[in-house]
Amino acid sequence: MTFPLLGRHNDRLKLLRSLAKGSGREASGCFAAEGLRVIRELLSSPLRVRLLLCEAQAGGEELELAHLAVRRGAEVFFADSQLLEQLSSAKTSQGLLAVAEIPKYTWDEVLSCPRVLVLEGIQDPGNVGTLLRSGRAFGFGGALCLGGADPFNARAVRSSAGAAFVMPLMRLSEPADIEACFGRMRSAGLALVTAAAHGGTPLTQAVFPGRAALLLGAEVRGVSRMASSVASLEVTIPLQGSCESLNVAVAGSLLMYEMGRTPRSEAV
Amino acid sequence: MTFPLLGRHNDRLKLLRSLAKGSGREASGCFAAEGLRVIRELLSSPLRVRLLLCEAQAGGEELELAHLAVRRGAEVFFADSQLLEQLSSAKTSQGLLAVAEIPKYTWDEVLSCPRVLVLEGIQDPGNVGTLLRSGRAFGFGGALCLGGADPFNARAVRSSAGAAFVMPLMRLSEPADIEACFGRMRSAGLALVTAAAHGGTPLTQAVFPGRAALLLGAEVRGVSRMASSVASLEVTIPLQGSCESLNVAVAGSLLMYEMGRTPRSEAV
Repeated sequence: MTFPLLGRHNDRLKLLRSLAKGSGREASGCFAAEGLRVIRELLSSPLRVRLLLCEAQAGGEELELAHLAVRRGAEVFFADSQLLEQLSSAKTSQGLLAVAEIPKYTWDEVLSCPRVLVLEGIQDPGNVGTLLRSGRAFGFGGALCLGGADPFNARAVRSSAGAAFVMPLMRLSEPADIEACFGRMRSAGLALVTAAAHGGTPLTQAVFPGRAALLLGAEVRGVSRMASSVASLEVTIPLQGSCESLNVAVAGSLLMYEMGRTPRSEAV
Repeated sequence: MTFPLLGRHNDRLKLLRSLAKGSGREASGCFAAEGLRVIRELLSSPLRVRLLLCEAQAGGEELELAHLAVRRGAEVFFADSQLLEQLSSAKTSQGLLAVAEIPKYTWDEVLSCPRVLVLEGIQDPGNVGTLLRSGRAFGFGGALCLGGADPFNARAVRSSAGAAFVMPLMRLSEPADIEACFGRMRSAGLALVTAAAHGGTPLTQAVFPGRAALLLGAEVRGVSRMASSVASLEVTIPLQGSCESLNVAVAGSLLMYEMGRTPRSEAV
């Protein structure tokens, strides 16, 4: 099987280029994903893949994924390596580029799991993606992004290693929606746990509620006053000596690891 | 107090520009550090700071650090914001740029602590820096970089949040030196612990030796055969469901957290 070669004036390129920006992703409801491993994850996820570009000189593994994409209903094109290089958000293109639809979840889907991750204004897309990846690994079944970097930004998608494709997640950017989500978590029976650099319950002594949302604050500013005021537990990771803080993706992952192994059969 | 304005033809600019590359850092034995927080850490570390550029319109905090740099024996210049923008490795310059000497440590200094971090071919400078930052936070008193990204690369320095300034660390790039370092660790009484994505002792059941070096392998390739063959313990972090792996900086930080809280008074 062979695929048509994508010409330089094809109108799909306009869509592809628009996905580098948040406004473009919002307008089309789509995002771009790159590279063998990420696209393998994408094609085994429930997301709808619309388009796949495959380098014309690609090897067996890339072609296998291209065929899988056809069976999943995607349009597939060959593209020359220069074009892929231009379209890539990474330093070097990895020979495969896909466009998929940003999934939409209900509040029930996002908040039903006993462990939910809440990212409040995390600015670095790499941190957002890494936190989703760790959340998936430690049994967090939903995620909320309150402002901050878009989890469907190219770097966030890469860092999430597929987690953004399978975890029910929602991004809120309006202040009123963000405020309302704290009430929704409470109604869903989720206690709010926040991470504090200093002064919280030491992680080694913390007892986590049976159903809990872990909220991580922005890299430098930390947890907002609003979140602090409704938190039922504030946890601090004990650090040694003169060390001030951990990277937020590391701190959050550590907390999720500990919360993930807490028996979750406790009273809700 | 005021400082001379650095002209566009000053020969210090040649040095500064050379530090963006590994070869330039090697030739001069210096590295560059940027930003308020990182430079505050630098000036409170034992490293020798040679040069500090401060934005001409800088505020009180920047000027305070500039005066501290003078007392620490550094040359200090004002520089205009455009020049700082050009010299910065970050997207936006942060108004302060320093040049300091790369520290040289003895084997004894690097290997004397009961917890040592070994990074084997970690390619991403952000991961290297983040791992050093976590190592410092969890009581790891020395670090070895076997190939991989340079811990004095600008992005690694930024991610390490000052850890690279205070942790005795050594970077080896020659294969013979790398091979020999395993014998040095053994002689220093350090047992080698490696992280494996699958099949190792589950982290929840691992008993860590009193003196141990934690070796983390490259992002995709994992631990080398040589390291595997001399490891006395291979640990795996249990992950849920379909999740394949964690980010290496997250996985390494989690292992360091667990190793850091193991009582280290055990038999050596």
